[in-house]
Amino acid sequence: MKDSTIKLAQGILSRKRDCLARAITLIESSRFDHQIEANHLLNFISIRKQTAVKAFAKHNTFRLGIAGPPGAGKSSFIENLGTRLIKKSHRVAVVPVDPSSHVSGGSILGDKTRMDMLSREDNAYIRASPTSGVLGGIAEHTSDVITLCEAASYDTVIIESVGIGQSEVDIDRAVDMLILIIPPGGGDGLQASKKGIMEAADLVLVNKADGNLLAAARSTKSDYASSIQFIRQKHRDWRCKALLVSAATGLGMDTVEEEIAAYHAIQCDNGELLRRRSEQAVHWMWGQLRRQAVELVEGDQAVQQRAGGLLSEVGAGRLTPRAAAADLLRVFKGPTAALDA
Amino acid sequence: MKDSTIKLAQGILSRKRDCLARAITLIESSRFDHQIEANHLLNFISIRKQTAVKAFAKHNTFRLGIAGPPGAGKSSFIENLGTRLIKKSHRVAVVPVDPSSHVSGGSILGDKTRMDMLSREDNAYIRASPTSGVLGGIAEHTSDVITLCEAASYDTVIIESVGIGQSEVDIDRAVDMLILIIPPGGGDGLQASKKGIMEAADLVLVNKADGNLLAAARSTKSDYASSIQFIRQKHRDWRCKALLVSAATGLGMDTVEEEIAAYHAIQCDNGELLRRRSEQAVHWMWGQLRRQAVELVEGDQAVQQRAGGLLSEVGAGRLTPRAAAADLLRVFKGPTAALDA
Repeated sequence: MKDSTIKLAQGILSRKRDCLARAITLIESSRFDHQIEANHLLNFISIRKQTAVKAFAKHNTFRLGIAGPPGAGKSSFIENLGTRLIKKSHRVAVVPVDPSSHVSGGSILGDKTRMDMLSREDNAYIRASPTSGVLGGIAEHTSDVITLCEAASYDTVIIESVGIGQSEVDIDRAVDMLILIIPPGGGDGLQASKKGIMEAADLVLVNKADGNLLAAARSTKSDYASSIQFIRQKHRDWRCKALLVSAATGLGMDTVEEEIAAYHAIQCDNGELLRRRSEQAVHWMWGQLRRQAVELVEGDQAVQQRAGGLLSEVGAGRLTPRAAAADLLRVFKGPTAALDA
Repeated sequence: MKDSTIKLAQGILSRKRDCLARAITLIESSRFDHQIEANHLLNFISIRKQTAVKAFAKHNTFRLGIAGPPGAGKSSFIENLGTRLIKKSHRVAVVPVDPSSHVSGGSILGDKTRMDMLSREDNAYIRASPTSGVLGGIAEHTSDVITLCEAASYDTVIIESVGIGQSEVDIDRAVDMLILIIPPGGGDGLQASKKGIMEAADLVLVNKADGNLLAAARSTKSDYASSIQFIRQKHRDWRCKALLVSAATGLGMDTVEEEIAAYHAIQCDNGELLRRRSEQAVHWMWGQLRRQAVELVEGDQAVQQRAGGLLSEVGAGRLTPRAAAADLLRVFKGPTAALDA
């Protein structure tokens, strides 16, 4: 392990923002030497956390997921909630999951200006975390980013996910509590396609309950409140609720804070929080293995060489993509592998 | 190659629906012997398509993607469009991509009742295609399902995707044209997070332009129409447009049909359609290889055994998921691999 890696780890543990930012960049790098260094860094930190930093027990940290469609006002909500938590002496890290634009290659989110007030707080850290698209809606390194943020003594880590559909189920694999933010309207009642989202949510907030959207927000809230009754309960001791909020006026935000605190207390007391985190860690282990398996096979020289020869066949439709892939996998396995097709 | 596989292939080529359904099930199976059989089937079909079925040239097929948020009315739109195409002697296959509910383990879409009229047509085939969640919003076998549908002489294949965010970019990798269906409202102007969607779309339709939603639909359409000007053009000879439609009353549907026909003609004439399909085939080849690589490593006996021993360490937080995954990959590579960490 390099001296610079130890220094970086120590910088994170002593709450240095620039060290945290550099470490996250390191973890997200696809360069092989960076990945080795990232492994060392994470191991060093997870050992240190268990021995030296006893005070920073698992129960003292909270991982909150915020999901919802574009335009629901997730950023404003996080800005409002985050500022409140900081006033109560919490340290808050916000990790937006960014579904990068494939066509332009550009990054959509990550502009700190979206959370102007929060980003100016000493006890807030806001980071954009680009997704590679391989593991779905949530960035493949989110679990590691949470580990780093908590090592830098951010006791509350908020994961924000854009998108509705798969992503909020993925996000639930990284957090202790999932809040779904919904804009007023779209009121055809609860559609079948929303079922997956509802099943994953611990709290549903209908946002923008202000001005001329208040009536629509009330009706949307009633829709969700009645739908929740038909959804299978996710936790033994917690039942999902639908509430009205306005991140702009602050309406309902006190209640939201109380609900979050109540949820956290219950999940700590009955052992659910630790049990879930343990399951999640195993889930992320397999996810990381899948990513590494893909890199291993795609990066194989014999595979690359063979692929070059197959491109024209596949492109012209003379060989199906699936058959070509099977051929490449045989090349990867090498001549000693049994002839299996 | 088994006799039963040849029979199945011949059944598909002679337009037998039950053969098509059975073949899709085969392709989606994760059983090893099924995968081998599926490879044989696809190869047989792609050779036959090139030799015997000359009349069925690539230009005669059209692959249409329909994306949009839940509640936009995608199914009603497809029902309306599909019925129109069938009246013009097309054969239409609809493949909804289903973001399966992880918590309930159940399938959300796929109920044919959503497209009641279309499902009763002799020249329509409607299929649910479950996603595994590994490759994002679009089912990993979509490309193969399209191949099978076209082999069964469905000249128009419609891929429907639920979800907004990553999925419509993924869907664009499988189709010739991508139509985005938007419900009226949500009119905070065009958000940055919608940029990726707009860049991928070839046509934006604001649906439900009827009854008391007509005014809202008009305003949403204007929003999109003005935003489109600032989006990078996806094709050389085609510029994305925003149109008003109502799948319920049929408003705008004639224009939609004309636009689709115009797009198809242009993309055939300038060679874009074939060029894109060729690129897409290569993309799917790598996707299939990634899936097969994951199966190879996850299914490895030594990996499974070692994983069993690591679970408690990872679950208790004594080993990071990433470090555990690196350890498992070393086990997969075997004792001959260089010690790289």
